[in-house]
Amino acid sequence: MKVGNDHFRSIWVEDGAVRIIDQTRLPHEFVMVTLDTLARAATAIRDMWVRGSALIGATAAYGMAVAMREDASDAGLAHAQDVLMETRPTAVNLRWALEEMERVLAPLPPQARAAAAMAQAGEIADEDVAINAAIGEHGLSVIRAIAERKDGPVNILTHCNAGWLATVDSGTATAPIYKAHHAGIPLHVWVDETRPRKQGAHLTAWEIAGNGIPHALIVDNAGGRLMQHGKGDMVIVGTDRTTARGDVCNKIGTYLKALAAQDNTVPFYVALPSPTIDWRVQDGVAEIPIEERSGDEVSFVQVKLADGTVTRPRISPEATPAANPAFDVTPARLVTGLITERGIAPATVAGLAALFPTKASR
Amino acid sequence: MKVGNDHFRSIWVEDGAVRIIDQTRLPHEFVMVTLDTLARAATAIRDMWVRGSALIGATAAYGMAVAMREDASDAGLAHAQDVLMETRPTAVNLRWALEEMERVLAPLPPQARAAAAMAQAGEIADEDVAINAAIGEHGLSVIRAIAERKDGPVNILTHCNAGWLATVDSGTATAPIYKAHHAGIPLHVWVDETRPRKQGAHLTAWEIAGNGIPHALIVDNAGGRLMQHGKGDMVIVGTDRTTARGDVCNKIGTYLKALAAQDNTVPFYVALPSPTIDWRVQDGVAEIPIEERSGDEVSFVQVKLADGTVTRPRISPEATPAANPAFDVTPARLVTGLITERGIAPATVAGLAALFPTKASR
Repeated sequence: MKVGNDHFRSIWVEDGAVRIIDQTRLPHEFVMVTLDTLARAATAIRDMWVRGSALIGATAAYGMAVAMREDASDAGLAHAQDVLMETRPTAVNLRWALEEMERVLAPLPPQARAAAAMAQAGEIADEDVAINAAIGEHGLSVIRAIAERKDGPVNILTHCNAGWLATVDSGTATAPIYKAHHAGIPLHVWVDETRPRKQGAHLTAWEIAGNGIPHALIVDNAGGRLMQHGKGDMVIVGTDRTTARGDVCNKIGTYLKALAAQDNTVPFYVALPSPTIDWRVQDGVAEIPIEERSGDEVSFVQVKLADGTVTRPRISPEATPAANPAFDVTPARLVTGLITERGIAPATVAGLAALFPTKASR
Repeated sequence: MKVGNDHFRSIWVEDGAVRIIDQTRLPHEFVMVTLDTLARAATAIRDMWVRGSALIGATAAYGMAVAMREDASDAGLAHAQDVLMETRPTAVNLRWALEEMERVLAPLPPQARAAAAMAQAGEIADEDVAINAAIGEHGLSVIRAIAERKDGPVNILTHCNAGWLATVDSGTATAPIYKAHHAGIPLHVWVDETRPRKQGAHLTAWEIAGNGIPHALIVDNAGGRLMQHGKGDMVIVGTDRTTARGDVCNKIGTYLKALAAQDNTVPFYVALPSPTIDWRVQDGVAEIPIEERSGDEVSFVQVKLADGTVTRPRISPEATPAANPAFDVTPARLVTGLITERGIAPATVAGLAALFPTKASR
């Protein structure tokens, strides 16, 4: 997507070097980093220079490719896999990408591995781009239908960052937004701040602004009021994991927006690449474990001062502990549709099975 | 309520001097200020050293008393009223308190006004304390009933600050909580951060902690998830204005918590002194105007650094505007009960009219 006048992916190869954007520096600084060693690739994932399920997977794949330049032996292959796997042990896409790389590289002689790894990482990245392009096309039809029914811009609310920065390009929730913008449909995006980590304020606002789409930042508390007053035409979010019946696990606070959407008859869509569907799970609220993150993310607010210093002052009393569940589950009954690369499914077992018959019957 | 080992009101008279707590310094510093001039009383209200409807009213009343020491002439009385009225022109309680003071003071000879003003301000403060004590008793019965049905602490979620710091003492939403704690009922309070101004993190957490009640700070996004998992037994909030049919205007984000409460069969209560009922209004969503505050409250986060400096760094891109509606309206259908000084009413025209027959029939 656009940064200034140039087009960027979130990870790319330039003169043989793997490069990324250090997302921890956004929105205030745009800093590119070269991942020239396995160690650096691991740091990029662990320290969240890159984040987002799809981008973590792609970075791990490219990390393996970089590692094969350092040591392409069987031991080197195993070592690289171990190092990268430990960076974000719960990331489903990370494991998948590493297994994919191993599957391709292990049978090859060591001297063939570096080139094959780079090609395979490129394929993984391209596949993500293609999936998101397809999600964008399907989601575009939803936005277009709303635009045809109303005057003025289509008001779209999104939560967290399921944008191009979370994928290799286009994003999931943002793919239909970018497609609609390019198709000339007038849009206005409400960007939820997304406390505690503020991915909306830091990342989504930055990428939406960079692509020239009218938008405004709001606190996470405000979406309900906007919908009550007809200022929201649809909600679209991404997901970390969707169950076989369409329950949607996503960033904390998503469920509250889904409730407000339902209460105000605003359609609530979830954009998802099919690998994020967990076919073994039905009841997301009961079955998906809560990830409880450090309360410090709540009690301290990370800010960047005018002189460039990053600091994390406390906002609450010393005597006050904090709880920090990272995700919630939006029950399928609140979801208008699941926008996948194969089309839009109702959030039901039958709806998902119709699009993915071989997966669903497993 | 307790601060350290001492009991404080939020405004009090000490050796003839009117004193307040500078709430802008909380939670990090506890600073008391003497309101020794009309100008200083006006500054205290305008710059939000004191805030909360009831406390603003009481401070205005004491401000009139201080002014009568400076100039008790008819001109001085009119001037003091004008100066104080301009501090927060939309505050309903401010106008009410000033009119009440004028009603008592205007007929008196100037030399009698200073003493009478101090006495009348004291009565206004005491009346608020009495109202909140009654709200506390009625709310206590709700908490007690929940405690009798379950093991372990009663988990209570609250939003913003409707605590003793927003009133003269006890608070509205917190009055039942403090009563229950004193009655030995085990409690745990979930304190919503309350972006953008963070009244939960700054004020509610501080006063709940100071009174020894187990609690935890959460981001505004988290309450739905907690209720989904049985970690919320009730919600209790305050209100800025309640309509004759029980629609509740309160801090932005309240509506989202009410939706989550309903979706999880968690009772949702609103604590309110009857003067905050607006008997002329029925449909809160349609009839109560939106107060849109500065987007800077969203785009910049005020924090206090380790060296004591207060600073407001930007969290979003320069190119990103912000919208900042300050309140939302929770429709009566989502409200389990309205806890008033006369008892608990269902959120209906008939329910409120039964408790306040003379007001409702106006």
